[in-house]
Formats: sequence, structure tokens, C-alpha cells
Amino acid sequence: MSNFGCSEMRLVNPYAVAFREARSAVKAHAVLEQAREYPTVAEAVADCALVVGTTAIGSRVLEHPLRRLEYGGKLIAKKMGTAPVALLFGSEKFGLSNEDMSHCHWLMRIPAREEHGSMNLGQAVAVCLYEIIRSPAAAKTAPDVKRPAEVVHTERITEILETILDRSGYVHARVEGSTRMKIRRLVRRLQLNPHDAETWLGMLRQILWKLEHPE
Amino acid sequence: MSNFGCSEMRLVNPYAVAFREARSAVKAHAVLEQAREYPTVAEAVADCALVVGTTAIGSRVLEHPLRRLEYGGKLIAKKMGTAPVALLFGSEKFGLSNEDMSHCHWLMRIPAREEHGSMNLGQAVAVCLYEIIRSPAAAKTAPDVKRPAEVVHTERITEILETILDRSGYVHARVEGSTRMKIRRLVRRLQLNPHDAETWLGMLRQILWKLEHPE
Repeated sequence: MSNFGCSEMRLVNPYAVAFREARSAVKAHAVLEQAREYPTVAEAVADCALVVGTTAIGSRVLEHPLRRLEYGGKLIAKKMGTAPVALLFGSEKFGLSNEDMSHCHWLMRIPAREEHGSMNLGQAVAVCLYEIIRSPAAAKTAPDVKRPAEVVHTERITEILETILDRSGYVHARVEGSTRMKIRRLVRRLQLNPHDAETWLGMLRQILWKLEHPE
Repeated sequence: MSNFGCSEMRLVNPYAVAFREARSAVKAHAVLEQAREYPTVAEAVADCALVVGTTAIGSRVLEHPLRRLEYGGKLIAKKMGTAPVALLFGSEKFGLSNEDMSHCHWLMRIPAREEHGSMNLGQAVAVCLYEIIRSPAAAKTAPDVKRPAEVVHTERITEILETILDRSGYVHARVEGSTRMKIRRLVRRLQLNPHDAETWLGMLRQILWKLEHPE
């Protein structure tokens, strides 16, 4: 909850032992300390404008509208801008009861494999909250624009590599011209950043030096 | 993992006690049973075409491209169609080491609050896998189209409600016309489905009967 910026945990009739022994995640103790207990769902959600139940949808016939998380998350995020919204989770074993669900405006389902019919509670909460805070705009972000190495450096790398390959007997005089072009294209495709270009230059210079000064 | 259709868990040099005592989620024991151990990251990801590391990005200076989950998830989903992809998670306490990261093509960050600098491992895995399997199309789904009650039923509800309010002394003869319109609009806004319309009709009929047959 705290990872995704949610601070208000409300517990309905919690199992005392589990609650007492619960340990918070790193730096999230405030959420557990401020958690409030309620005897009924009705009291826990009394001040909320929207109550959404979560379900793994089993054989139970649901009388509520059931929405996939991708769509439901959008509705919740929108509503949260103007009013408190409750996201209701049942126990890991049994989920929400029909009585619990009767307090919900609609139900939401994580699009997980139906074969399981159940999901770890903490993981289900994390996935739901992530969907609510995720940014559709961020999904469209273009790949990080890399600052490319300066041409003078890639050109220098090409030259030294060529010399090295020449000294090593890789380049044959007859095809020298086409080989040079091949090497230039090969180096360009590496899309080196300025820092890596310098590192490569240093390595190649050293190799060339060694080739010219054999023991 | 199993909830989101992933079956191949690979463990690098796992802490034996934790691994031996790990209990799988409901119906997910196959994932744990088939988990393979590797002595090094290099061996674990040897057959993968893409290796993505996850990080909570702390103070560490990252030399890798860092992508938000929303965008990175899309790239992973695309690549998974043609080749095996490894998603690399570090320990909950320390995350991935620089040595681990050197095996990654790029890094991915869950857009959680940076104040925490850490996230529960199971929750981080669930959130990443959810983003990879989530359907952008599902987010655009129009609200469930409800089959509305037939007009003849909502009209009958309006009539009976009107009669009841009349008998109860709610409607004054002087403003009868405008009240009737108000009630009609009120009933339309309930957007009753066929089944609920029948239930309401039954309840209203009973109330009307009682009003006409006082003890």
C-alpha cells in the first residue's frame, strides 16, 4: 500500500493473532500503526463514495457488474480525484462473502489464470494499486534517447580497428575498399555513447600498440 | 508467477533454508517443483534473448538504460513472442548487484514511491508480470451494457409509486402534474434491469395493497 501511496488501511473484524503479529514492510510501519478496525463492512466504508469489491470469480454467480482491472482501475482513479474510494479485499482463502459484496457498487477481477481461483492477498493488493497509479502516458514513452558518440570518435575507432585488422592479416589488399566500408557500418551500428566510445578507443589503441611492439 | 501464466522459475545460488521451506501458492506447486538452480546469473540466462533487471533505483549510479514498467513491459511482451526473456530480480534487501546488472540488456523500475527504495519481492514479481499480460484493449472496454427493464415495467412502477405516494399524502392535488413527471424521471434514473424491475413491482404492489387494506 505504502509503495503505491495509499495510507489508509481499514480492517473489518480482523483475525487478532495475524493482525498483532503482522510486520510492516520497510518504512511502511505508519500504515499498520494507523490501521483502524471496524466490526462491519458497512461501518468501514460508510464515508466512501465508491466501494469496489475484488474477486477471483469462481463458480459463484455474481449479481454485480464485473469489470476487468484494466478498465475498473481507470474508473477508480477518476473517482478518487473527487471522493474517497474503498477497495474491498476478502480473505485469501474464501474471498468476499455475498454479504460483503452487497456493500459494493461493482466488482473487479485481476486478469489472472482462472485455474487458480485465488491469489496471494498482498500480491493482489499490489497489482490493483499499481493499475490505479500506472501512467498510460509512460507506456508510450519513446526509448531513452541516447546521446551518441561524436563522429570524430567513431571514425577514429573505425580507423584503428582497420589498422589492427590489417596488421592481423584479416584485410586482404584486394578487397581493402569494401572492407573499410563494412567496418565503418559495423562500428556505426554499435551506437556507442560518448563514454563507451572513449573506452573502446583506449582498448583498441592498446591492442594496436601491442601488435606493433611484439615481444 | 503461475497466476500470470509463467512457469519457469530459475534460482541463482538460492539461500537453501528459505528455498527448502518455501511453500507454493494454491495450485502452483509445479512452479516450485520445477524450479532449477544455477550457480551464476550467466548460466541461468544463457538461453535468453533478452535479460531485463529490476531495480528500485536507489543512490546507485546506473549505467544501463532504465525504463519504467509501463514501457518496459510492452517491450518484454513483444520480445516474448519470438524468444525467451529473463526477468531478473535481486534479493528483497539488497536488490541486484552491479555484477548481476552487467548481465542485463536494460533495467526496469516499478513506478512506486521512491522513499521506500524497496518492495516485497513477491509483490514486485506480481506487478511486473501483470503489466506484461495486461491488455490495453481491456482498459478501453465500454461499461457493461446493461439490458434495461422494459418501458412498460418502469411505467407501471411509476404509476404504482405515484398511487402509493398519493395515498400516503405525499402528493398534493395542486401540484399533481409536476410531481408525476418528477417521479417518472426519478424512476428512469434508477436504470433498473428487468429482474430488479419485477422485484420492485412486487414490493410496491404489496405496499399499495397494505395501504388499501389497513388493519
